[in-house]
Amino acid sequence: MSDDQLKAYPIPSVKRLPLYLRFLHKLKAQQREVVSCTRIAESLDLVPVQVRKDLAMTGVVGRPKVGYEVPVLIDAIEDFLGWKNASDAFLVGAGSLGAALLGYEGFRDSGLNIVAAFDTNPKKIGTEIHGREVLPWEKFHDLVQRMHVHIGVLAVPGEVAQDVTTEMVMAGIRAIWNFTPVKIEVPDNVIVEDVRLTASLAVLTSRLRQELGARS
Amino acid sequence: MSDDQLKAYPIPSVKRLPLYLRFLHKLKAQQREVVSCTRIAESLDLVPVQVRKDLAMTGVVGRPKVGYEVPVLIDAIEDFLGWKNASDAFLVGAGSLGAALLGYEGFRDSGLNIVAAFDTNPKKIGTEIHGREVLPWEKFHDLVQRMHVHIGVLAVPGEVAQDVTTEMVMAGIRAIWNFTPVKIEVPDNVIVEDVRLTASLAVLTSRLRQELGARS
Repeated sequence: MSDDQLKAYPIPSVKRLPLYLRFLHKLKAQQREVVSCTRIAESLDLVPVQVRKDLAMTGVVGRPKVGYEVPVLIDAIEDFLGWKNASDAFLVGAGSLGAALLGYEGFRDSGLNIVAAFDTNPKKIGTEIHGREVLPWEKFHDLVQRMHVHIGVLAVPGEVAQDVTTEMVMAGIRAIWNFTPVKIEVPDNVIVEDVRLTASLAVLTSRLRQELGARS
Repeated sequence: MSDDQLKAYPIPSVKRLPLYLRFLHKLKAQQREVVSCTRIAESLDLVPVQVRKDLAMTGVVGRPKVGYEVPVLIDAIEDFLGWKNASDAFLVGAGSLGAALLGYEGFRDSGLNIVAAFDTNPKKIGTEIHGREVLPWEKFHDLVQRMHVHIGVLAVPGEVAQDVTTEMVMAGIRAIWNFTPVKIEVPDNVIVEDVRLTASLAVLTSRLRQELGARS
């Protein structure tokens, strides 16, 4: 598979896959064996042609007049997303956001297993946060190599985000989940996914300010 | 200001404002009084015409050959975003994600002050999480009214997200920061901003799976 093919999957479609997965798991719990494209579309407020296109990414095609087999589709989506076995990840930066991320157990269902945290602060090193040990940053490179960890969760202060990123890449990290507000630079073969909580909050608060201003 | 005008601000531009703000605060700390559009653009890897357009939203225009006055621009952006005084918000759902959000102190700098949490679990009610009290959900309606809180942070399980949203709207909440994977329905005059951590993770893990598959 070439890089060009990798980029051919539309991001909005990929982002909808967890929604399908959630819905399919609910059907499975109700012992439903098959589901039509139309039914999925109605339940998730989408158009059937979009649903068919999204699901086709996973390689599964529904049978005419029957639909999709629920367990087969769940399997295909989890496989596509790489969620069948949660990937181990290292968290870098055990400040208040980092600690918060360690405290959230929901990531494991979404393919991410944060196994350890790293920090430079001597007061934090050696402590445990939600059951995960905080290790010295100096050990990061070595442990990435030894444990074959591919994913790094970046939760350091913005000022050091690029320097830390560069070191993560040098250590062999292949995918960075970036919780800093900084636009980090990486080589072409490293994946970055930005969360940008601050940007999301900017949209919320600015619209609220305008709304309240408009009505008062 | 009408609703049409509200929607006229492009979301990507609004999302970039915190980046400008961060850069401007850095300049201010260095006692820089003015900054050119070109300088901002270069530092943030944007094109000058885009920077000019983004910043014009806030009502500030740079002077030719001089640029923007740093303190004036900071003030205008913070005003536009509604970040001059952090807005009080209520968190709904004090599970592991909710607790994580309470633990993160960075939101306050981005205009959000979570003052209390609400839950239905008797074991959680009455406890304190990172200094904020967990109150019974039954008190939500009354406290929204009495404290004039406009923002709700939604961190409940997906299964109850819509029901809780409806009650939040009935109580008078005007803006919902939605951390659930559910697409919640609200009246036109209520703002919803979705964070979709799971969707973000889907992009990361699926691309990594493909990358690793492609090279192995």
